[in-house]
Amino acid sequence: MNTQVGIVGGGPAGLMLSHLLHLKGIDSVVLESRTREDVEGTIRAGVLEQNTVDLMVDTGLGDRVKREGLTHHGIELRFGGRGHRIDFDELTGGRAVTVYPQHEVLKDLIARRLEDDGDIRFGVSDVQVHGHTTDNPKITYVDADGNEQTLTCALVAGCDGSRTTTRGLIPETTVRTDHFRQYPFAWFGILAEAPPSSEELIYANHPRGFALISTRTPDVQRHYLQVDPDDSVDNWSDDRIWSELHARVDGEGAEIKDGKIFQKSILQFRSFVCEPMQHGNLFLAGDAAHTVPPTGAKGMNLAIADVYFLSEAMSEYFATRSRAGLEGYTDSVLPRVWRTQHFSWWMSSMLHRLPDDTGFGHKRQVAELDMVTRSAAGRTLIAENYVGTPLR
Amino acid sequence: MNTQVGIVGGGPAGLMLSHLLHLKGIDSVVLESRTREDVEGTIRAGVLEQNTVDLMVDTGLGDRVKREGLTHHGIELRFGGRGHRIDFDELTGGRAVTVYPQHEVLKDLIARRLEDDGDIRFGVSDVQVHGHTTDNPKITYVDADGNEQTLTCALVAGCDGSRTTTRGLIPETTVRTDHFRQYPFAWFGILAEAPPSSEELIYANHPRGFALISTRTPDVQRHYLQVDPDDSVDNWSDDRIWSELHARVDGEGAEIKDGKIFQKSILQFRSFVCEPMQHGNLFLAGDAAHTVPPTGAKGMNLAIADVYFLSEAMSEYFATRSRAGLEGYTDSVLPRVWRTQHFSWWMSSMLHRLPDDTGFGHKRQVAELDMVTRSAAGRTLIAENYVGTPLR
Repeated sequence: MNTQVGIVGGGPAGLMLSHLLHLKGIDSVVLESRTREDVEGTIRAGVLEQNTVDLMVDTGLGDRVKREGLTHHGIELRFGGRGHRIDFDELTGGRAVTVYPQHEVLKDLIARRLEDDGDIRFGVSDVQVHGHTTDNPKITYVDADGNEQTLTCALVAGCDGSRTTTRGLIPETTVRTDHFRQYPFAWFGILAEAPPSSEELIYANHPRGFALISTRTPDVQRHYLQVDPDDSVDNWSDDRIWSELHARVDGEGAEIKDGKIFQKSILQFRSFVCEPMQHGNLFLAGDAAHTVPPTGAKGMNLAIADVYFLSEAMSEYFATRSRAGLEGYTDSVLPRVWRTQHFSWWMSSMLHRLPDDTGFGHKRQVAELDMVTRSAAGRTLIAENYVGTPLR
Repeated sequence: MNTQVGIVGGGPAGLMLSHLLHLKGIDSVVLESRTREDVEGTIRAGVLEQNTVDLMVDTGLGDRVKREGLTHHGIELRFGGRGHRIDFDELTGGRAVTVYPQHEVLKDLIARRLEDDGDIRFGVSDVQVHGHTTDNPKITYVDADGNEQTLTCALVAGCDGSRTTTRGLIPETTVRTDHFRQYPFAWFGILAEAPPSSEELIYANHPRGFALISTRTPDVQRHYLQVDPDDSVDNWSDDRIWSELHARVDGEGAEIKDGKIFQKSILQFRSFVCEPMQHGNLFLAGDAAHTVPPTGAKGMNLAIADVYFLSEAMSEYFATRSRAGLEGYTDSVLPRVWRTQHFSWWMSSMLHRLPDDTGFGHKRQVAELDMVTRSAAGRTLIAENYVGTPLR
């Protein structure tokens, strides 16, 4: 079996890359270890930047996201017991974010790829990339029926998420540098059957710790509480969760609405970037190359931005045989990756209780929130990064 | 001897307070431990916010600062070997900073107070405030001739700088909370006879550490290098200083001009805020109540802002006997103090090498500088805080 681009991983990066390549007349095969049901059924967060929605609409993926996605024209930053709205409309000239969970994006991508006769192999195992620094890379894998298969291709895309195996093909130290940071807090997340507590997301700074109020559907809410990284869901009864959410968020103009909690989980906070994001004919995109803390809601958007540029470079290569775009791939996406790391870190550092804080830190944080929210420039800096700066 | 306001300390806070009170018809006496020659002769830094210049001009102190002060319409943030200008004119609608050293401000204030028959007692010692929580505070001191004196007054202003004794009169823990932070770096400062290296200040982020290029006069330059807090001037030959400055600053559009170094000193980095800034009839202003790191050039400006509000509250008290303004003094100035702590911390954290940085930190910093300087909103947020947000 032969194709132009072998894509390891059928998440947002891999599927969107396959879709964008198809539109440029380039063949690809996507290899995904999970089943289609798994991919489409795993509920994930999803705040889509304006860029992501625009790209979906521009490439024929926009019908459902426009119909079912919830457009948010602002968020609330809450501190000192009061809310301060960041008005995206006013501050960014009409850009917005759309709440549309990741698995819905994946459903749209899969449906469209299959409609376009795209080749996605679900349920594969033992995926191995060979000869990625030669002109004849190949990928071996075991298909869903247990048969060993070989895929030859010109270029390989490593889109296999944060548990990536493709990243390891870029030799560490001699070629690849990994930048890693662990944060001293975690998020305790719940899904609850409850009415929305707020029309827009609330990011709350409180001396007891950060809280995030968000919504999935009119009947299902997703809230988070900052906890210690070594905390456990077993320590949190439903009563304790609601009482803590009320303590951190309730006040002028906000009151949490309780409900039935049906999922609890703890999310660690990490930042990771590897560079370069390429080696020979292997190109990483999305979580395989970088992880951001969830505060800025950027993970999927960054993956989409990566493959937007990668598809252009690959297209240039197949059209002209010039490797200029390919060789420049890392440089074309890495500054955005680092700015997004910064933005996610900034939102995190401004909103979370720092464990060794003696009081100065919280006062400084509140002063920063005060400085940023009272200034149109400060609000704009948050808004334009939250909705996403234009890809070009 | 009796007066309405007894002012401990004849720095910018004390002298400006005395001047502002005089304009409102209120008598004061300023007690200063140094001689007039000492006060006027100690060379200090001086970047005046637009607010400070405006207040000087509006209250009849503007002649010399307008003639001799150097108006700066921007600064340069330098990283990745390139300069990025923050254009105050464009970004703040014409506001600017003025380089005019602190001792020149003090000369203007002293000259004007004496012209207005103001009472400044230089060279006093053993200043002690008594009964500041009663209706009859008094201040005892030994005058320049060695005679014990007593000053009775209605209100006391503690303007005696970071080595304050008046702050101690606000009982710690029960009434007063001190917020303190020490930073893991220091500034090595030099004064040099050399031509200016740049028309505007250069704040340089470099993997080797921060550098600041500034100017005092056309012939005298003031430069700083980030060093470890326990470094010593003895470790730095002139050659090493110039070579380090070249390494951290030279590049596209910038080249340091060497000269003869005639002063070397090391400046520690601290943040301090006490709250409340008052107790009974005692009111602190300026460094007696708070210290900011030098990166934002805010120390003197914050002192001037404090006494602007304090003079209004005192004036209201003497006019109406209402204590509302006095009781609200801390709340009227503290949010600005904390925002200024944040701004100074922000500039510091964005520009200095962090001692335990494994590489992630510097990448994030450069991404922050990139995010901030490429965005008009980001540049505006720096500019409006650097020139000073309006007092009201």
